[in-house]
Amino acid sequence: MAAHLSAFTGAPLSGERELIITPSTQGALFLAIAATVVSGDKVAIVRPDYFANRKLVEFMGGEVVPITMDYLERSDGAGIDLGQLEAAFKAGATTFLFSNPNNPAGVVYSVDEIGRIADLANRHGATVIVDQLYSRLLYSGVKYTHLRASDMSSDNLITIMESSKTESLSGFRLGVAFGGARLIDRMEKLQAIVSLRAPGYCQAVLRTWFAEPSGWMADRIAKHQAIRDDLLKVLRGVKGVDARAPEAGSYLFPRLDDVRTMRACLAAFQNTRARNEGVLSALPTSGRISMAVVRRRRRASAGPLSPRLMSSRQRRSIDGAMTPTQRSPCQGSQKSHNWGGS
Amino acid sequence: MAAHLSAFTGAPLSGERELIITPSTQGALFLAIAATVVSGDKVAIVRPDYFANRKLVEFMGGEVVPITMDYLERSDGAGIDLGQLEAAFKAGATTFLFSNPNNPAGVVYSVDEIGRIADLANRHGATVIVDQLYSRLLYSGVKYTHLRASDMSSDNLITIMESSKTESLSGFRLGVAFGGARLIDRMEKLQAIVSLRAPGYCQAVLRTWFAEPSGWMADRIAKHQAIRDDLLKVLRGVKGVDARAPEAGSYLFPRLDDVRTMRACLAAFQNTRARNEGVLSALPTSGRISMAVVRRRRRASAGPLSPRLMSSRQRRSIDGAMTPTQRSPCQGSQKSHNWGGS
Repeated sequence: MAAHLSAFTGAPLSGERELIITPSTQGALFLAIAATVVSGDKVAIVRPDYFANRKLVEFMGGEVVPITMDYLERSDGAGIDLGQLEAAFKAGATTFLFSNPNNPAGVVYSVDEIGRIADLANRHGATVIVDQLYSRLLYSGVKYTHLRASDMSSDNLITIMESSKTESLSGFRLGVAFGGARLIDRMEKLQAIVSLRAPGYCQAVLRTWFAEPSGWMADRIAKHQAIRDDLLKVLRGVKGVDARAPEAGSYLFPRLDDVRTMRACLAAFQNTRARNEGVLSALPTSGRISMAVVRRRRRASAGPLSPRLMSSRQRRSIDGAMTPTQRSPCQGSQKSHNWGGS
Repeated sequence: MAAHLSAFTGAPLSGERELIITPSTQGALFLAIAATVVSGDKVAIVRPDYFANRKLVEFMGGEVVPITMDYLERSDGAGIDLGQLEAAFKAGATTFLFSNPNNPAGVVYSVDEIGRIADLANRHGATVIVDQLYSRLLYSGVKYTHLRASDMSSDNLITIMESSKTESLSGFRLGVAFGGARLIDRMEKLQAIVSLRAPGYCQAVLRTWFAEPSGWMADRIAKHQAIRDDLLKVLRGVKGVDARAPEAGSYLFPRLDDVRTMRACLAAFQNTRARNEGVLSALPTSGRISMAVVRRRRRASAGPLSPRLMSSRQRRSIDGAMTPTQRSPCQGSQKSHNWGGS
């Protein structure tokens, strides 16, 4: 595992001292924040980013310092406001937490952005936690820069991944965190009281991670990309929608002018049929619209779903996810990053 | 599941509102403490009890109020000092956390003790978290009283269990917590940021829980009991050892006079061969001795293990556990409650 992760990220890694297996990236994020943030600490997080980041910081009594990411105005890079990040460090932020590729916008940080983040973190002695959950799900032609392979001090860096959606293995709940030995050791000690360990029997599946049959990952990614393209085509046919093509991941995060635009999107989706026997739907949540491809479960319900007819459980399972055919035997195991619980 | 737990504990249970599936009892304990304790709260915990209880309270910034349990002086009941518990509540303790059967002493609280705990908690409006991990592993003739079936206010009570050691399923990491809907709802929200959910694929095994083949559990318990009796016989043959027979669970927690007694115990164990092709060993940890039955892995290492020759990983896996033959394919999944990490 350490050898695979080292090769993938382009930096050496000791499996003995610098790697921990956690119950999912969620478990890894919790441990990473709990190991680095104490009450009163300032933590810089990107806006928008994974919805739980704010809650994690607040659980530890930390103070969130939001950093703007203007991804819609950019065609390359994520669009993070590096001036704001520098100001946050100068104002005493001790930790910076971000996802790359960004969840939910699906944009990838440029080599310049990663270099500047490394430089700023080094100068201010800050800890950086980077959630790379979707870093294997890159669409064609996208260049990805691993922060681990930059000049960033490895002592102060934690990288988080999971054999998850790209591989359709999220039901196994197997995340990894790797980085500075001192931080990983702290996470290990915390894990002893938080969950003790990741599920033992599941861990056998990690032998298949980064060891997929030749062409399998490329095929998966091509299928994701086709769905992305279908969705983008529909969205861009609606007036008042501003949607940047995601470079990675399973999300679309468009900006809509108003409620009328939202209704027009819903109508456009209801006249469309996605591939993989999916149906399309959209839900207004938390002041924005999340869109999902949902696999049709029964022939009888082949018609488009109505948001108002969905149970809260269904909503949770689909909100925000752009999911290709799920082959999981266990629907309850699907990880939905964007559902808007409080 | 709710129906099984309701029948087992003798009190009604709503699976929809009063039950959460967690990554193991450790995950359940963490969420229960995190949902009830905030910085500065006083939390009563029994001494001795599960080693992580103190750490959980301290992680949340709570103040531990120790309650003495004089189990060696008793032949019935656990021996909790109820006067100390009452004093703790009077001094402002808002939560009481204990295991029943007690881990590590293996003693079971009497019906009177449970009634008094319920009464005191009700009078002071305290929340009670009871870890019943070993409540299915009761040796012959032992009477067990479920706090849920007492007069304790169900709103303020959380019960924790796991399909674990008794069933040799700990590698699946599947705990349950059930109780007051308000507390369970808080735990559910916390779980969203701590681990998101228990491993999905593993959850299928819960269909077998409380639905074991006829006679299977009785046979398991009889095998545990035979090991307990073997160990007790050896221990009681050594001068300076005070050992009460555990009524439940997988632990023995004797008191030894001094280091000489410890050495005599080690020698006695090294001349003994436990059933199930196990070997016996003992380790001095944290000022006491933990004893374990370890399954012999290779014919070549059939001789008694030397504590000094064990790796720290081996120590972790055996310390404190009195484990019958493990049939798990995944050694790393064994849960050892008593290892003395910090």
